[in-house]
Amino acid sequence: MTDVQDVRRMDAQDTLAPFRDRFALPEGVIYLDGNSLGALPRATAARVADTVTSEWGRGLIGSWNDADWIGAPQRIGGKIAGLLGAEPHEIVVADSTSVNLFKLLHAAIGARPGRTVILTEPGNFPTDLYVAQGVAAMIPGASVRTVAREDIVAAIDDHVAVVMLTHVHYKTGAMFDMPAMTRAAQAEGALMLWDLSHSAGAVPIDLNAAGADLAIGCGYKYLNGGPGAPAFLYVADRHQAELRSPLTGWMGHAAPFDFGDDYAAGAGVNRFLCGTPPVIGMAALEVGVDLMLEADRTALFAKSRALCDLFVDLVESQCAGLGLTLASPRDARVRGSHVSFAHDHGYPVMQALIARGVVGDFRAPDILRFGFTPLYVGYEDVWRAVEVLRDVLASESWDAPEFHARSAVT
Amino acid sequence: MTDVQDVRRMDAQDTLAPFRDRFALPEGVIYLDGNSLGALPRATAARVADTVTSEWGRGLIGSWNDADWIGAPQRIGGKIAGLLGAEPHEIVVADSTSVNLFKLLHAAIGARPGRTVILTEPGNFPTDLYVAQGVAAMIPGASVRTVAREDIVAAIDDHVAVVMLTHVHYKTGAMFDMPAMTRAAQAEGALMLWDLSHSAGAVPIDLNAAGADLAIGCGYKYLNGGPGAPAFLYVADRHQAELRSPLTGWMGHAAPFDFGDDYAAGAGVNRFLCGTPPVIGMAALEVGVDLMLEADRTALFAKSRALCDLFVDLVESQCAGLGLTLASPRDARVRGSHVSFAHDHGYPVMQALIARGVVGDFRAPDILRFGFTPLYVGYEDVWRAVEVLRDVLASESWDAPEFHARSAVT
Repeated sequence: MTDVQDVRRMDAQDTLAPFRDRFALPEGVIYLDGNSLGALPRATAARVADTVTSEWGRGLIGSWNDADWIGAPQRIGGKIAGLLGAEPHEIVVADSTSVNLFKLLHAAIGARPGRTVILTEPGNFPTDLYVAQGVAAMIPGASVRTVAREDIVAAIDDHVAVVMLTHVHYKTGAMFDMPAMTRAAQAEGALMLWDLSHSAGAVPIDLNAAGADLAIGCGYKYLNGGPGAPAFLYVADRHQAELRSPLTGWMGHAAPFDFGDDYAAGAGVNRFLCGTPPVIGMAALEVGVDLMLEADRTALFAKSRALCDLFVDLVESQCAGLGLTLASPRDARVRGSHVSFAHDHGYPVMQALIARGVVGDFRAPDILRFGFTPLYVGYEDVWRAVEVLRDVLASESWDAPEFHARSAVT
Repeated sequence: MTDVQDVRRMDAQDTLAPFRDRFALPEGVIYLDGNSLGALPRATAARVADTVTSEWGRGLIGSWNDADWIGAPQRIGGKIAGLLGAEPHEIVVADSTSVNLFKLLHAAIGARPGRTVILTEPGNFPTDLYVAQGVAAMIPGASVRTVAREDIVAAIDDHVAVVMLTHVHYKTGAMFDMPAMTRAAQAEGALMLWDLSHSAGAVPIDLNAAGADLAIGCGYKYLNGGPGAPAFLYVADRHQAELRSPLTGWMGHAAPFDFGDDYAAGAGVNRFLCGTPPVIGMAALEVGVDLMLEADRTALFAKSRALCDLFVDLVESQCAGLGLTLASPRDARVRGSHVSFAHDHGYPVMQALIARGVVGDFRAPDILRFGFTPLYVGYEDVWRAVEVLRDVLASESWDAPEFHARSAVT
């Protein structure tokens, strides 16, 4: 049985523990929602201030060249590639996850003539399903087919242009076997598109080793890039000449500053850029990515699994009989870096936890979701969080009117 | 003949002159490129720092509700509506200008069944042409037709789904008659889409009075929202129920936090949102928009015209015989807030001006472009800029090797 001395010993032995002080976390908060919005790196405020005051304020228009604003999509993309087992020229930072998904889904169908199906699973992250439905609606004959995850491999046939899956499920944390699923898609002639939003910086990913075709991901979760940070997209080198972006903005042009009238797709992954890059958001994202690159990733992913395992064990021992049901895989090898439990009163329970300084989130209809970000969450945090959870449930303190009031964002 | 005493008197009488101190402009620079990237409002640094340090750092995920991050697209859109003669519920802030143009062009063609042509002019801003070409390429039978601006009205026929024009031309500053062109498009059953990137905050616009259908625009020019600021889009109330966004991301869903599997378009203009809003960029943009809202717009537009007129007069009198040819309309009533002159050696001439602290920009092949932003440019600035221009041209100081070296961004 784990006790508080054990978790303190684990923290004392944690080689990643010094990263905690690199984040500006508020006192008294145990932040278990870095899988929704990563915490603020201490270095970000100064970098953003410099971008605003010096680069924009004093450098003005010249900073496109002098501060290399124009190169930020490729520069930061190249750094993310280093986290994900990709080549630097295979990733750019641009737009939102949703917009990048649109580009790659549309391009994927275009690259598989005669195939019209986007295959995915029900309960995938909503924007993925919605964007896929939008793409299908605009291509004659195209459709979205959803099948339960255990039936996906069998459902890949020669109608499927692209298999679109979220590597780590946003709600349950269940993780696909990326190499195996990629091979299964490719074996039937389909392209495989991975949404890495809940994976990048959270679990080991080696896109090239997996033979991945296409991927997108989010900058504001484990990459700690800030609210609404720009997103990234990956196109394997072998597909770059063939795929066409449907969003043919000037930044994806072969020569944007020639100001010609006719679109000509830029080289490689650059063609998947569209409008002017969001410079301030890019600066914040780069700080988060740089910090992630500093961490030993073997240690990072080992700690992620250990934190999640500890949480599951403690909840099941400390909160037995209090109405919680594990909604995530028990086996860390097929789970991301967050853990969910179902509870009949999930919404007010989470509000009560937040009021006590334990910040996770609620996902309809009944999921309490807890993210374990190894750069700034420690073992004693997990211990304390479970103490609070037990107390909230055992005392039924969640059943107060203020915890039932719904917010705009849940 | 205007002399320096005259321009000083004009500055002394300028009711907008106090706004100059609201911007953090570097010493010794006459900034005539606010039409490309607006200057930094002094209030922006503190607002961005607060968004980063307090809202993100301390408020964390709760700031989606507590700091109303989730309402920023509508809140800032509503403020921009106040500048443009629109209702608050007709404008949202989202994505880039290019992405917003894609949404509205695609939606416009969808709303005009049987019509397949996007009508525009050659030499429109490149991203507008490129995005239109991309939209046309993905809709069977659709095409982009370009005709010279004087022939556009005659070219609107029952094949035209949407007329897409930039209200103030990015290179010449020539301005269309918005109400007349809008009526001409509508008379033939087409929709009219205006790109207001070089207009918003620069010239009088009354979208509702003009009967406008659709518009997009840029946050980082006269609205002083910062490099790569989020863009805006306008859909007239009467079209909102009918038009469908092709980018069906979760933020455009009727109930994004229900996390359902099926897309259902949000109410009104909200359906044209797509991914998670870029919060830090939104905060910077809001400061710029708020500052613009403080200014008396009658005085603002009168000063814009006066600055441009003064510049044209002074260049033609002071720089006669030095190789400059006016490339903008002489008549302020059909001109935006920037003025261009052609010169055979435009590129090195502009680099030499910038080295002397007069910052305009170059547009291929031969255009020197000067923007006059009435919030922070004064009459004596115009006088000094023309002095430097005359000196650079008369001395041929531009013909030094360092001024010929091309940068990534021109």
